[in-house]
Amino acid sequence: MSKGEQTRQRILERAAPLLNRQGYQSAPVSEIMRVTGLQKGGLYNHFDSKEELALAAFDLLMERVNQKVLQVHRSHSSPLAQLLAHIALISSGGTQTEGGCPIANSIVESDDSNPALRRRVAKVLEQWRALITHTVAKGIVAGELRADVNPDEVATRFITALEGGHLLSNFHGEPRYLRQVGDFLREYVERDLRVRASAALP
Amino acid sequence: MSKGEQTRQRILERAAPLLNRQGYQSAPVSEIMRVTGLQKGGLYNHFDSKEELALAAFDLLMERVNQKVLQVHRSHSSPLAQLLAHIALISSGGTQTEGGCPIANSIVESDDSNPALRRRVAKVLEQWRALITHTVAKGIVAGELRADVNPDEVATRFITALEGGHLLSNFHGEPRYLRQVGDFLREYVERDLRVRASAALP
Repeated sequence: MSKGEQTRQRILERAAPLLNRQGYQSAPVSEIMRVTGLQKGGLYNHFDSKEELALAAFDLLMERVNQKVLQVHRSHSSPLAQLLAHIALISSGGTQTEGGCPIANSIVESDDSNPALRRRVAKVLEQWRALITHTVAKGIVAGELRADVNPDEVATRFITALEGGHLLSNFHGEPRYLRQVGDFLREYVERDLRVRASAALP
Repeated sequence: MSKGEQTRQRILERAAPLLNRQGYQSAPVSEIMRVTGLQKGGLYNHFDSKEELALAAFDLLMERVNQKVLQVHRSHSSPLAQLLAHIALISSGGTQTEGGCPIANSIVESDDSNPALRRRVAKVLEQWRALITHTVAKGIVAGELRADVNPDEVATRFITALEGGHLLSNFHGEPRYLRQVGDFLREYVERDLRVRASAALP
């Protein structure tokens, strides 16, 4: 990394938690200056606008979450094990981000007034959904998951429950809500998605 | 209602959707003036501050949701039917509010900087949880629900899934995510909570 790239990265590292907590749109530039120790001119050497900085901060946080999720998928070859590890990672708080889930924060914030952030969120949600539906489809082909399972429905159940769990756990500052959501999804996978030994036999 | 109370009510009716969409804290007074057609002086005749107006707007929206939820509980005497009607009401969009769920919006917004709004949200969540745990407890006593069901766990599963469903349905502008969440919770109630005929017989 060049010196300029290093500075850019350092700005993002410090600004991202602030933007995620106070809002990608509503956190004031003065606060970004405070946490980075830079003047406006210093910031705008590296970013064209506050909006560009905020989008890059969102990307940085989501990139970290993605890396962790992809890592657990890569460390298992069975689709069933991948789904269970996916649940375990997120429901144990392994992807929690200072200031709450960037997806939920951005959905609430970008309702109407920030189309660029909205597009980012839409893309992240689409990738998350695709990872789940793809894994379910592989599991059906591999004979681990029931053939009548609807991958899109599985994705909605995962995403809504995990996002709701993040919302409550962050609000109350208590990991138990996410853990309870993990139990819910695990039971669902074990009971409704998994092909049981007895059912697999003719 | 006195004329003053009527004006106060009219201000809230118009300001509440705006505040819910743009943020109870971050919607600017100028926007509240625009949607109500009043000058600052006119607004501050009825509210001590923008904060007080915002809290009253949150209360108004939540009061409406509460009324609908309590209404469906009142229209059934069986706790099992109450839980199913609770799911049906919310997952069919019957409590959807312009600009998204006020609870999720406020959780994200009041992370750190708005203790009064935070207390409101905490109280609303506590009431919602109490309604569910109380209904589950009644259902166990009535022999409709299994005795080994944990009411607190049921409440978390309901609240997280429904909040996550709101988040996705609002973001995509599509009711199907909330509907899919409704299916998930209904299956859960029917299969894990309900005492089955066969299980009830010795």
